[in-house]
Amino acid sequence: MRKQKLKIAMLGLGTVGSGVINLISKQRGIIKRRTGVDLEIKTICAKSKRKKRPFNISAYNWSDDPISLTKDKDIDVIVELIGGENGVSKKVIEEGIKQGKHIVTANKALLANHGGNLANLAEKYKVALRYEAAVAGGIPIIRALSESLISNRLTSIYGVINGTCNYILTKMETEGRDYNDVFSEAKKLGYVEADPELDIGGIDSAHKLAILSSLAFGTKLDYRNVLTKGIKNVSLEDIKEASNMGFKIKLLARAEYNKGILEQEVAPCLVKKTIPLAQVQGSTNIIVLEGEDIGETVFSGPGAGMGPTASAVVADLISVAGGHQTTPSLNSISVSKRPSKVANRNMNAFYIRFQLKDKSGVLALLSSKLSSQKISISQMKQKASAKGEATLIMTTHKTMQENLNKSLEEIKSSKICFGEPVSIRIQEI
Amino acid sequence: MRKQKLKIAMLGLGTVGSGVINLISKQRGIIKRRTGVDLEIKTICAKSKRKKRPFNISAYNWSDDPISLTKDKDIDVIVELIGGENGVSKKVIEEGIKQGKHIVTANKALLANHGGNLANLAEKYKVALRYEAAVAGGIPIIRALSESLISNRLTSIYGVINGTCNYILTKMETEGRDYNDVFSEAKKLGYVEADPELDIGGIDSAHKLAILSSLAFGTKLDYRNVLTKGIKNVSLEDIKEASNMGFKIKLLARAEYNKGILEQEVAPCLVKKTIPLAQVQGSTNIIVLEGEDIGETVFSGPGAGMGPTASAVVADLISVAGGHQTTPSLNSISVSKRPSKVANRNMNAFYIRFQLKDKSGVLALLSSKLSSQKISISQMKQKASAKGEATLIMTTHKTMQENLNKSLEEIKSSKICFGEPVSIRIQEI
Repeated sequence: MRKQKLKIAMLGLGTVGSGVINLISKQRGIIKRRTGVDLEIKTICAKSKRKKRPFNISAYNWSDDPISLTKDKDIDVIVELIGGENGVSKKVIEEGIKQGKHIVTANKALLANHGGNLANLAEKYKVALRYEAAVAGGIPIIRALSESLISNRLTSIYGVINGTCNYILTKMETEGRDYNDVFSEAKKLGYVEADPELDIGGIDSAHKLAILSSLAFGTKLDYRNVLTKGIKNVSLEDIKEASNMGFKIKLLARAEYNKGILEQEVAPCLVKKTIPLAQVQGSTNIIVLEGEDIGETVFSGPGAGMGPTASAVVADLISVAGGHQTTPSLNSISVSKRPSKVANRNMNAFYIRFQLKDKSGVLALLSSKLSSQKISISQMKQKASAKGEATLIMTTHKTMQENLNKSLEEIKSSKICFGEPVSIRIQEI
Repeated sequence: MRKQKLKIAMLGLGTVGSGVINLISKQRGIIKRRTGVDLEIKTICAKSKRKKRPFNISAYNWSDDPISLTKDKDIDVIVELIGGENGVSKKVIEEGIKQGKHIVTANKALLANHGGNLANLAEKYKVALRYEAAVAGGIPIIRALSESLISNRLTSIYGVINGTCNYILTKMETEGRDYNDVFSEAKKLGYVEADPELDIGGIDSAHKLAILSSLAFGTKLDYRNVLTKGIKNVSLEDIKEASNMGFKIKLLARAEYNKGILEQEVAPCLVKKTIPLAQVQGSTNIIVLEGEDIGETVFSGPGAGMGPTASAVVADLISVAGGHQTTPSLNSISVSKRPSKVANRNMNAFYIRFQLKDKSGVLALLSSKLSSQKISISQMKQKASAKGEATLIMTTHKTMQENLNKSLEEIKSSKICFGEPVSIRIQEI
């Protein structure tokens, strides 16, 4: 049913929460004229009332108790911007739904872990649970997948969906600085989550990918089976060598669905410099969809930040008020078989870097270990590094991931190299 | 109100109409499971019942009379895919709305010319008029503008939105063939509208731009004031020379809104080869949005074709059935002053090509005419062409369009060149 006025409780008043309050203050009149919907923030709620905020808190009711807010008869919708995959955010959403409140959230960690159950609960209580702001801030990808492109059979979705990692990789590449240096800077600038592992460990990308792939393929949300690898081991040297060969290194999130098998992976990959995905800089996100009828569709835009994320929250509020009170499903039919963790059944080329002992016979041994797993070399380059060491860089022709793994294990145990060989997939897109 | 079942009349059974029928036949079950909406095509209607169609017409009621269909009590929504800016398509939509039917259409020419009135009529009769398929086929840009990004103040929108022109320009560039040659090929392949002027004259782009800019800026739809220039005068030579200087030539549609002034233009432009917009090939469309809070967001995908366009129509049907029965407004508040035709008040650089008489004093005269309008040259190149002729190619520093026009007029009347000088704006994006 179309509501002319929507009464809102804002839970969590950090960057995004403040952004939503400011955006609604500024645009309330225009939104009303253009959509017929009046967004009224009734109550705000955060940990500390005394903290300095970029808006006047006295214009709203203040609450210290998010749970009791769910029972407030004068609230239509709860905007949950507290964050965290468990704890109060989960409780408040569950309780809110049971009390008949619509929910708008940006909480990807919560959705990745509990989205299926929460979507079921919302359906049971006939309220909307909406989360456009949870993935890729300013890019309206949730609505595109769950509404605009719903009649398509999508076959793959991939992209760069963590701004912090992309910022770090872009800075390393353009300024020739090493990982630790740029990471510290990003941390100082407030770009890194309180638990850095969420960003640089690839977990945030995995949360988002699980949500996207569920919507894209109509499969049950399956965050546990995202193969996840972060960017900590991407060295400046690899970035430079990749660049010399015409590639950039990006933290790629990728899901494919084929014959009932869902593959989901987050990992650093080499991609050709010339494609739009490689050109995405800093905190910009890019998402590419491929489908049977639709071919390839690409979305790019700001992946985070106050403005874009607040705009996504407000779009959800308008949509709920406008009568669009369904939940983009995270719990659709598992279209056929259960999702599989066996990613990378396809052949791929790889970039590999070895630190070798610089003595005779090493290259011969290494080559034989590779060829015994039917891995053939496409490009190769050796350079002297520290005394007694040589760096060997190569790209392979297409091979199976498991063959490569076996071969690298054998090379490692033959004690001809220092440390771990580095291998990064070359993603053909 | 949410309708579980939507009873549909299909008007027009060409490529898109057949695509919609096939898509619904194939995906009806999945759509029902994923969205709860059952799409039932009841009646189909086209000029000739005897024409061979790529689906079994006997599965549906047949009607020869679109107008009487609007009175059929057993129809919820009319899908208008007849086309044409007046005539039966307009009548059927007006009559359908008055009879309380929702309308889904892909008819950009009709919307560009009458969209404001039709949107008003739909609002009056409380039905939905939806048109995702009218612009950029597989890119869900209408919904992005009218719902997802509605709370943003957008400042500009630009892109490549006519696949036929982009196909011709791409072929000329990559295969070194001239305009007439590629145009004939495109015509044979069925890529060109019955009235070619719609495509190559830039009119189709102008139709789409007017719709997009109205949604983007909340301004009254204003197709009449789109400055429109097609691609007929883009020569292979210009494409090659632009390429030598690091540019591609694209038919760019561009609208800006600033301080109550709306500028809308469709024209061939030089754009830097390295940007994603320049890399859009063939019939792919790309649309870039810029806004105060949101920064830059880019959408690209298939601009036409049966699959993508049918998918957009079906998305509209699901949306209408799902209770989202509003009309993306084409008739919003003229935010302040009336739209203006005075485009290009900004300074721009230009590419210019002259066919000069090859005799002494010509260059001096030409230079003085340019400098008298304060136009300064950035790059220049002269080459011999036919006997007694020389081709002079230059790019200018930034100048005003009107100064350039004056200067080119003066040069023409001084009789030092053959034919018209060619000038193409270099668009900085």
